[in-house]
Amino acid sequence: MAFKIGLLGLGTVGTGTARILQEPANRHPLLKEIEIYRVGVRSLTKPREVQLPPELMSTDLEGIVTDPAVDIVVEVIGGVEPARALMLKAIAHGKHIVTANKAVIARHGDEIFTAAEEAGVYVMLEAAVGGGIPVIAPLKQCLGVNVIDSIIGIVNGTTNYILTRMQTEGGEFTDILADAQQLGYAEADPTADIDGWDAADKIAILASLAFAGRIKLPDVHCEGIRQVSAVDIAYAQKLGFVIKLLAVAQQEKKAVVDTQDLEKGNFQSLQVRVHPTLVPQTHPLASVSGVYNAILVEGEPIGQVMFHGPGAGSGPTASAVVSDILNIAAVLKSAGEAKQLHPLLSCIHQHYCQIAPVSELVTRFYARFLTQDFPGVIGHLGTSFGKHKVSLESIVQTGYHENLAEIVVVTHDVREGNFRQALEEISALEAVDSIPSILRVL
Amino acid sequence: MAFKIGLLGLGTVGTGTARILQEPANRHPLLKEIEIYRVGVRSLTKPREVQLPPELMSTDLEGIVTDPAVDIVVEVIGGVEPARALMLKAIAHGKHIVTANKAVIARHGDEIFTAAEEAGVYVMLEAAVGGGIPVIAPLKQCLGVNVIDSIIGIVNGTTNYILTRMQTEGGEFTDILADAQQLGYAEADPTADIDGWDAADKIAILASLAFAGRIKLPDVHCEGIRQVSAVDIAYAQKLGFVIKLLAVAQQEKKAVVDTQDLEKGNFQSLQVRVHPTLVPQTHPLASVSGVYNAILVEGEPIGQVMFHGPGAGSGPTASAVVSDILNIAAVLKSAGEAKQLHPLLSCIHQHYCQIAPVSELVTRFYARFLTQDFPGVIGHLGTSFGKHKVSLESIVQTGYHENLAEIVVVTHDVREGNFRQALEEISALEAVDSIPSILRVL
Repeated sequence: MAFKIGLLGLGTVGTGTARILQEPANRHPLLKEIEIYRVGVRSLTKPREVQLPPELMSTDLEGIVTDPAVDIVVEVIGGVEPARALMLKAIAHGKHIVTANKAVIARHGDEIFTAAEEAGVYVMLEAAVGGGIPVIAPLKQCLGVNVIDSIIGIVNGTTNYILTRMQTEGGEFTDILADAQQLGYAEADPTADIDGWDAADKIAILASLAFAGRIKLPDVHCEGIRQVSAVDIAYAQKLGFVIKLLAVAQQEKKAVVDTQDLEKGNFQSLQVRVHPTLVPQTHPLASVSGVYNAILVEGEPIGQVMFHGPGAGSGPTASAVVSDILNIAAVLKSAGEAKQLHPLLSCIHQHYCQIAPVSELVTRFYARFLTQDFPGVIGHLGTSFGKHKVSLESIVQTGYHENLAEIVVVTHDVREGNFRQALEEISALEAVDSIPSILRVL
Repeated sequence: MAFKIGLLGLGTVGTGTARILQEPANRHPLLKEIEIYRVGVRSLTKPREVQLPPELMSTDLEGIVTDPAVDIVVEVIGGVEPARALMLKAIAHGKHIVTANKAVIARHGDEIFTAAEEAGVYVMLEAAVGGGIPVIAPLKQCLGVNVIDSIIGIVNGTTNYILTRMQTEGGEFTDILADAQQLGYAEADPTADIDGWDAADKIAILASLAFAGRIKLPDVHCEGIRQVSAVDIAYAQKLGFVIKLLAVAQQEKKAVVDTQDLEKGNFQSLQVRVHPTLVPQTHPLASVSGVYNAILVEGEPIGQVMFHGPGAGSGPTASAVVSDILNIAAVLKSAGEAKQLHPLLSCIHQHYCQIAPVSELVTRFYARFLTQDFPGVIGHLGTSFGKHKVSLESIVQTGYHENLAEIVVVTHDVREGNFRQALEEISALEAVDSIPSILRVL
């Protein structure tokens, strides 16, 4: 019994996938039962880094997803359309899906998983988050016995590369971004990465698995790294922190509402957010550098576990894609004619998680102010914060910047709404020129 | 359909397991279909930290493993016997096994897995290595599409706790061991931990999964941490290293023998070993501190992935045990009446990996010598090393120790056999008093 693959896309990930399947020696023996049956591409004449028999290649992607002989459709073309439509059509034709497409899953996961459940097929997406790092499978198959408190990830390699270089070289964001683009570590249009949207897609996916409910992407609070300056990185370092773009899904520890609600995954206080964050230098995520990704899961009773590895690239991402193919093949083999989906591989939740607005977040903040060098400015800041119940850990005049005094504030845990109100009041003060940086502290 | 558990043992891990199963709210819904049906203990009168109906409790462990109503036997009594005999009897009676017992699996895995395959049952062992860290499941289900080059783990919490404290406090091994025993981080008889036997059990298990062949435990080269002194830790730090007890399974990159051999897992040059090691401070394993464990897997095409988390403890280990139970329940549910075992969960290899003797290892070494303070001693050492093809990176007189000169040598990559021959010659030199430390360098 061979499992026939319809591979959509032969770019970076598709090429890596084909390579593994073409060289099964010394890998899991089940790989020998997996056959690249058809390959859908945009151009038949483009030179390829992998040799495939020409008769497998086709530009008719619809023909592949509707081909009765295809068992598993592997979607690695990326982008929202036509990927979404092809996946839905494949599902309607009873194909299992393996995808690396975080954008489609984060935006259209609801319709895709509903269709898959009706059709009795699997939709596997290990490659959509964290490149080669096994994190989706452990979340679905190993950590589900825990009550998850939080997932905190460094899930975007481009921004972590830029922040790591800013940290080690002391350079400014725009210069290092330009260099990263030249070196191929950042896209020509880097918006999706540096504004945090890519990370938002990924944390939406992780959160929906960890907290067993669907996530509406617009509910994810998202800030990128454009505002992070060399000055902030240097201050953070003095204070014992590094700055990382974190993707966070966290259940606030309020009084539990009622068990019925919880069983449905209605964590009324779930926060899902992406933002640059001051991470203590001793924290496991602080040492994740360059293009590496890491995902830290905290739950009861397991405590903290972290998954660390290459977050992108042809080989690692292909490893994730092929492991998904292998898992589908394995479960089909063991299930025989039985038609019930494997309960840990299929996606069963149908309701939406309720996401708390970021104003309700309780966290520490770091903020940097530029003010006139008047006596009493620190006192004014302190008073305004106090009025809004913002308790300060430190308030330090760190130096001067173009005739303005630079003041750095670190708070204790505060409600974000209160902190923002205090900032509004402070920015109206005559002595305050601007507030160039507002960062959260882990 | 409920799955009935026969739980053998109600110690630390058994208690944690019962706790999760008693509180399924907000965990995976499949947990509600798992029932603690019988519990085997040594004493019915001992006070327990978990409440279980007295009618479930029994001292008749044989009666539990042969009870026709029991689906899954969870063995968390530890030790080799009667655990081994009970597992074999349970398998003979068609029960699936979940175990946290690294000692039995490392010593008797061959007979247990052979019996399980004949009986058509699963033997799951996530909890046997790395406590709560999902590492067995990712190896079996995610990373098998890779050709694995190496697994390097910090898999013993006690030794990592001792080495971390030696590093941060500068104390000596015996003092910190005594303190660790008082604090409950080391056993009254700490031999299995500090002499590396526990780590050897675990790397034998990991190696057999990663390299798809059985491992004979006596083939694992094993050195503990008794020889590591505060002086070595301090020198290592100056050289840019920390000292960790590493468990390593590594395929030496010699010319590939022939593909046929490789497919059978006959890596003729597989090394499996446990020893204290100088780890570069920038290496991902260097920052794994205290009782934490981490396992670094390197393969093609994935590159390096690392799994990090709590390596022991009631809650984390129970998380691993219950996730194994859940996986068996899930696969039984989806397979229905089909009797074919799930190819990624079952253990299919039957041959033994060929392990190369440690004398064939190619690695860097750190060695510390105490010598008479004669002129020319460094020259004699250098000459002896050169004669045996040992290329040195540095040779430094670091100071004096009770009227003897202390000399630290770091080599380039050398064949261990050559290095040992050189040491033998050197220790016969009149000027050489002793060689207190010989450590490998990662």
